[in-house]
Amino acid sequence: MHFKEILEKKRNSDLLSEEEIKYFVNAYTKGDIPDYQVSALLMAIFLNGLSIDETVCLTEAMLYSGTVVDLSNVPGIKVDKHSTGGVGDKTSLIVAPICAALGVPVPMISGRGLGHSGGTLDKLESIPGFNVNQDLNTYKKIVAETGLCLIGQTKEIAPADKKMYALRDVTCTVENKSLISASIMSKKMAEGIDALLLDVKTGSGAFMKTEKDSEELASIMISIGKKMGKKMTALITDMNQPLGSHVGNALEVVESMEVLKGNTLPEQKDLEELSFILAAHMLVLGGKTDDVDNAMEMVQTTIKDLSAFKKFKEVTTVQNGNAAALDDVSMLPTANNTHLIKAEDDGYIQKIDALLVGKGSVLLGAGRLTLDTVIDPAVGVIVRKKIGDKIKKGDLLFEIKYNDEMKLKQSLSYFEESFLIDSQKVSKPELVKKVITDEG
Amino acid sequence: MHFKEILEKKRNSDLLSEEEIKYFVNAYTKGDIPDYQVSALLMAIFLNGLSIDETVCLTEAMLYSGTVVDLSNVPGIKVDKHSTGGVGDKTSLIVAPICAALGVPVPMISGRGLGHSGGTLDKLESIPGFNVNQDLNTYKKIVAETGLCLIGQTKEIAPADKKMYALRDVTCTVENKSLISASIMSKKMAEGIDALLLDVKTGSGAFMKTEKDSEELASIMISIGKKMGKKMTALITDMNQPLGSHVGNALEVVESMEVLKGNTLPEQKDLEELSFILAAHMLVLGGKTDDVDNAMEMVQTTIKDLSAFKKFKEVTTVQNGNAAALDDVSMLPTANNTHLIKAEDDGYIQKIDALLVGKGSVLLGAGRLTLDTVIDPAVGVIVRKKIGDKIKKGDLLFEIKYNDEMKLKQSLSYFEESFLIDSQKVSKPELVKKVITDEG
Repeated sequence: MHFKEILEKKRNSDLLSEEEIKYFVNAYTKGDIPDYQVSALLMAIFLNGLSIDETVCLTEAMLYSGTVVDLSNVPGIKVDKHSTGGVGDKTSLIVAPICAALGVPVPMISGRGLGHSGGTLDKLESIPGFNVNQDLNTYKKIVAETGLCLIGQTKEIAPADKKMYALRDVTCTVENKSLISASIMSKKMAEGIDALLLDVKTGSGAFMKTEKDSEELASIMISIGKKMGKKMTALITDMNQPLGSHVGNALEVVESMEVLKGNTLPEQKDLEELSFILAAHMLVLGGKTDDVDNAMEMVQTTIKDLSAFKKFKEVTTVQNGNAAALDDVSMLPTANNTHLIKAEDDGYIQKIDALLVGKGSVLLGAGRLTLDTVIDPAVGVIVRKKIGDKIKKGDLLFEIKYNDEMKLKQSLSYFEESFLIDSQKVSKPELVKKVITDEG
Repeated sequence: MHFKEILEKKRNSDLLSEEEIKYFVNAYTKGDIPDYQVSALLMAIFLNGLSIDETVCLTEAMLYSGTVVDLSNVPGIKVDKHSTGGVGDKTSLIVAPICAALGVPVPMISGRGLGHSGGTLDKLESIPGFNVNQDLNTYKKIVAETGLCLIGQTKEIAPADKKMYALRDVTCTVENKSLISASIMSKKMAEGIDALLLDVKTGSGAFMKTEKDSEELASIMISIGKKMGKKMTALITDMNQPLGSHVGNALEVVESMEVLKGNTLPEQKDLEELSFILAAHMLVLGGKTDDVDNAMEMVQTTIKDLSAFKKFKEVTTVQNGNAAALDDVSMLPTANNTHLIKAEDDGYIQKIDALLVGKGSVLLGAGRLTLDTVIDPAVGVIVRKKIGDKIKKGDLLFEIKYNDEMKLKQSLSYFEESFLIDSQKVSKPELVKKVITDEG
């Protein structure tokens, strides 16, 4: 098989066969096809698209470029949740222990923050000692014994995706739904799961800015999962304002623990609500009940009896973290300084642009613009008012937690321009726009 | 300026500015942008297109990546001819000495054969001793003293094009009219010419298969030339059957010398006619007359008095070739064996597929599939009957000149499948489909 024939076909908008897709993914991963040819193919795919069948083949080829974890020895339906990324989105830290506490095993391989959105691994690593770099055998053991394990992508998982993602990043071919779906699903299918809940974000702080785009992305990923024999559900959820109140790595751990302990503040109610809905859908996927309302009640019990919080402390201990820091969050990294932004007018919060808040947080040091940036786990922002809240002049809007005066200066305009106060009354945004199940 | 912004713009079908095009061409030529990013841009250009203005900017940037020859010391309007390539197309060897004999200087930098089409340099090198690798100072001197010089692209000419063409070749981004035009024109504009005649081939043996595509390509190149202050004319000419009778390097020299000596056979009349028309248009561009018919009469005089043939011998001697081999063509490389293909039916020649004849010749060793193939100057095919000719069973159709029995076997089916004989009478194809001048 010649790579140029494959390239020419996709350039001409023809469909690629399963053999052709397998060939180029394997040959590229082995280093038999140079980057400069694959980047031309990626651009042709970006502009001419991939069919669902092609996308499934691509996902499978990337999946089988590495190890596919076998968790068949762990009883029960293994369920994971994947979010397409947002600002203040720390639901993984909440839903994973809730489900595990209720007996649904959660094998979770997560990513790091990149661009304006945060990553689960960075948040976990703000807990002193927490080790996300477990090998796959240890991972399997922890899932079996603790009911959940939270690790990063190992080099055995979908190496084709790793190589291709790096190339997409430098060739402006990231934002394509088929390529995004294949990248996500090839990693998720390697975890050893039976079912997957997708939280597809939509709005200014999401990669997908419109509901239509988000639904398309969800439907591609559901198709892939179904063709691979997995149970799939997708929620299209709001990402026009940060989720909850805290943005930044240790800060998001703090807020997550408050939710798990049932101590949420008004500005954290959206995080709590979304986390519980997500957990409920995971319980349904995990076969604990057929009814989401019933599942919501089960979720509540894990908050009331603190079993979810205890489960999170348990997994923290198992993964070498200091669980005492979850009881006493002053043991987590804490920024030295706080800068307050207060309202200059009366009115209602019209918007809090999640993208700008995310970018501001990155500039503070909470995130990374390139993969080799060292992040500061302590810094970030606490959003004290949310869209629809009534405001009086002087009310506290943002608490910016910072360590570096220069970085504060660079980020400040992002925070200041992120919100809009006006006299018009507005309602809170709808949190869950749509639920898509694999029954169609 | 960031290359990724340029790439993203073209990916989104936005127009690139002159600065952006200059930036990436220069940075790529210097090695500051990696191949894998430029190949993604080339695919985006291939699929989303370039405007005329962008194409002119690209041509200029590639032109000024290297040396632009100054021939202002040579009196007269310097005219070159460029053909987009075909099978049996040896008109350069005929028109250049005709024009030079009539006082129109012809500075000609040519290419090598690639794919199914031949190249002027390979043909010239079949003349013992002929040196096409003159440096640019010698080239200027020869144009001034002899009125024509026939050389290959030196490393000083459009290095950006050289680098980008190599990348296009391996990324399936060759067949794009803007990229083809910029590549051709950046090299032609470097020759030191004042005017350019384009022979844009159309049909099965041409890169452009339809007249519409050929006209579009011609019009883009005319626009580029005009914007650079050059006089331009384009002829759209037939390439559905091989031009003339001989295909192969030394064989084409033989046929060209017959035309220059006025000894053409019936199967060579199309070559003679097209060469004379092209030469006539070059004379008009060169300011020798305003009238093409008048120019045709001037061309005839150079054949009758052998001044064009003598001019070709003169330049051969100046470029270290053995001009005696042009009088006695048995001194040219000659194949050891001949295989004849004869008609198996009575009827009329309906078609002689130039692409198949070209591919067959390449397999015999006359051409190259990759740039490092060593060609055999002696081999090729002589086409003894042309489209429209009346045939009797047993008539000689092809004389295949070969040195290697294996290569003959590989190529034979191409020649045998190239022609079609049927009882229906057909007329000879129209040689010149259209003349496009820069007056519109």
